Amino acid sequence: MTAPIITLTTDFGEADSYVAAMKGVILSINPAARLVDLSHQIPPQDVLHAALFLAGAVPCFPSGTLHLVVVDPGVGTERALVYAELGKQRLLAPDNGVLTLVERSLGVHRLFRLTESRYWGTNVSSTFHGRDILAPVAAHLSLGISPEALGPALTELHRLEFPEPRVAGTCICGEVIDIDRFGNLITNIPASLFAEGAGFLAEVCGRTARSVRTYGMASSGELVVVVSSSGLLEVAVTQGNAASELGATRGDAVLIRFE
Amino acid sequence: MTAPIITLTTDFGEADSYVAAMKGVILSINPAARLVDLSHQIPPQDVLHAALFLAGAVPCFPSGTLHLVVVDPGVGTERALVYAELGKQRLLAPDNGVLTLVERSLGVHRLFRLTESRYWGTNVSSTFHGRDILAPVAAHLSLGISPEALGPALTELHRLEFPEPRVAGTCICGEVIDIDRFGNLITNIPASLFAEGAGFLAEVCGRTARSVRTYGMASSGELVVVVSSSGLLEVAVTQGNAASELGATRGDAVLIRFE
Amino acid sequence: MTAPIITLTTDFGEADSYVAAMKGVILSINPAARLVDLSHQIPPQDVLHAALFLAGAVPCFPSGTLHLVVVDPGVGTERALVYAELGKQRLLAPDNGVLTLVERSLGVHRLFRLTESRYWGTNVSSTFHGRDILAPVAAHLSLGISPEALGPALTELHRLEFPEPRVAGTCICGEVIDIDRFGNLITNIPASLFAEGAGFLAEVCGRTARSVRTYGMASSGELVVVVSSSGLLEVAVTQGNAASELGATRGDAVLIRFE
Repeated sequence: MTAPIITLTTDFGEADSYVAAMKGVILSINPAARLVDLSHQIPPQDVLHAALFLAGAVPCFPSGTLHLVVVDPGVGTERALVYAELGKQRLLAPDNGVLTLVERSLGVHRLFRLTESRYWGTNVSSTFHGRDILAPVAAHLSLGISPEALGPALTELHRLEFPEPRVAGTCICGEVIDIDRFGNLITNIPASLFAEGAGFLAEVCGRTARSVRTYGMASSGELVVVVSSSGLLEVAVTQGNAASELGATRGDAVLIRFE
Repeated sequence: MTAPIITLTTDFGEADSYVAAMKGVILSINPAARLVDLSHQIPPQDVLHAALFLAGAVPCFPSGTLHLVVVDPGVGTERALVYAELGKQRLLAPDNGVLTLVERSLGVHRLFRLTESRYWGTNVSSTFHGRDILAPVAAHLSLGISPEALGPALTELHRLEFPEPRVAGTCICGEVIDIDRFGNLITNIPASLFAEGAGFLAEVCGRTARSVRTYGMASSGELVVVVSSSGLLEVAVTQGNAASELGATRGDAVLIRFE
Repeated sequence: MTAPIITLTTDFGEADSYVAAMKGVILSINPAARLVDLSHQIPPQDVLHAALFLAGAVPCFPSGTLHLVVVDPGVGTERALVYAELGKQRLLAPDNGVLTLVERSLGVHRLFRLTESRYWGTNVSSTFHGRDILAPVAAHLSLGISPEALGPALTELHRLEFPEPRVAGTCICGEVIDIDRFGNLITNIPASLFAEGAGFLAEVCGRTARSVRTYGMASSGELVVVVSSSGLLEVAVTQGNAASELGATRGDAVLIRFE
């Protein structure tokens, strides 16, 4: 039998000992757990980015994978910690909206609020629930305890206010919701909003981008709009950096005009 | 039986091939070793930060875990490389003070200086002992060789000069010793210096911070002092960044006044 | 039997979900695969840096290790994706020159172009072949399929134009080809070009560096030239940062004069 996989997604960075401490806590309870780092470079306390990150990553994993998520600006306040089964994925996270987009794509199966402290660390700090609650709970789950044992069932998750695109006549008005390492502008406009193969232009930061199916159909340095690997429209400069060329930031308007 | 765990902590970053080369060397000698990355983002040659990092991370791991540490500004000089059993943790590191704080919390069990070159790589470079000495020794240890085989016993470790807080009347004078990714100021003042629940104020950079037990007891943006997850006092701005708001840097004085 | 190792080298960073998605795809096809992160911090689309990185890392791994490399500025164009056996290492990568230096040191054994789409993901995006082609192919290889099944054999790899040093009388003219995290200047001049122990000086950015065998032979802050752990000459400031002190950048000339 293959050892159980626990993935880790945090905004802790790696310079501090926070991630390492969580790994130690998990392995102390279940030495056979297989840890898979997803990211520790979520921008600090950026719940929207984390929600997009999880939507891109979580559905790719095998059924039953356990994902531990610590992006938790509300640590030490009354926000809940939850166990969520979304589709066939299992997640442990603060209930602050970080699961909104995974829930939207996979659906909720079961939810529990973490209240049973016998599965927690012995001394729970007020500033580091990742190490003191979420990591031990993840390890116990990987050993086979039932999620029902973690606490009472919940009926719904806290939802992030996610900016929705508006369809106005022959236009779609959206915005830049994320910028990736290559300077590509990820928009909130899903390709599913319009017919495949439809020609259109995207206006952003006073510039116009031509729609292409692949980067290979554009010339080097051209501003284009493509369907990204996550199914959202993405504005890019081929072999360049759209964000720095356009001075674009999150929240900038993106207008789609059909031809 | 679960495969042996070897953790890795370095200041190598990940852009260069140094960490990858060490992983390859270990797996070439023991293909069953389980590698767990703790950090490769220790600031370059920052032995104090690494010592704090290890103090936060190492005690969380299962007994018998082997930790490989390469923060080694003295590579190519006469500093020793050591195998240290601190409490029930096993560490391989340069003897440059990086183990000082783990030793203080766990105590020394056994120490050996690495001199037996038959457990090293075949060509030892003068600039990369992590790959050429520490990684092969870690792999051989994970295969079960006895630490006595590595070289002669040592009686003590080189100690870092660690700034100690001073108690002066009803005040404690300490300093900022580290700043984490969230801009929290980690001080050298352990909570164990005073009675639990005692009220106090912290003065730092001309500002006064109120002591709270949890972030939830402060208003957003308030400057507070809490007991950090490592047991040291920590100055923070709730949902903000204390380091940038105060312009604080390592070494800045922190004065605790009891009420 | 030990589970098969798949290493990952990308320029994706970790803030975005790209690496995590690849890991999920691999584990969905082969849950027993052991993933080893080499780097996700290759500078974006920097094929030369990636080639140097792989030359330092890949030869350290056990025979038969499978290395997945995604530094792919040409994604969506006609560049090929390849399976390459170089020495006893197995690599999957875009055929854009990134394998040039590993090939030079290990030699080519077998090459195949990836064309058999039955080993790919079901919906291949035009922007993310790492997730949709390379990751599934890696997972299938780790399950034991034959490389011949991936597509037609190739006779040679695309080569990177790599700057070669010139020998001119008693001098060698080279250049800075990389700068590591410590500010050391990696040159394109292999130590194999001259007799071991030969004394020489290196001129770079108007400064002169003395050759030493180890950093311990130089005083703190001295500009020296040493043979790096990869066998190339490297200009360094002991306990300092040569790149920032000299204002050096990639491409700067390095002149070696023998004494």
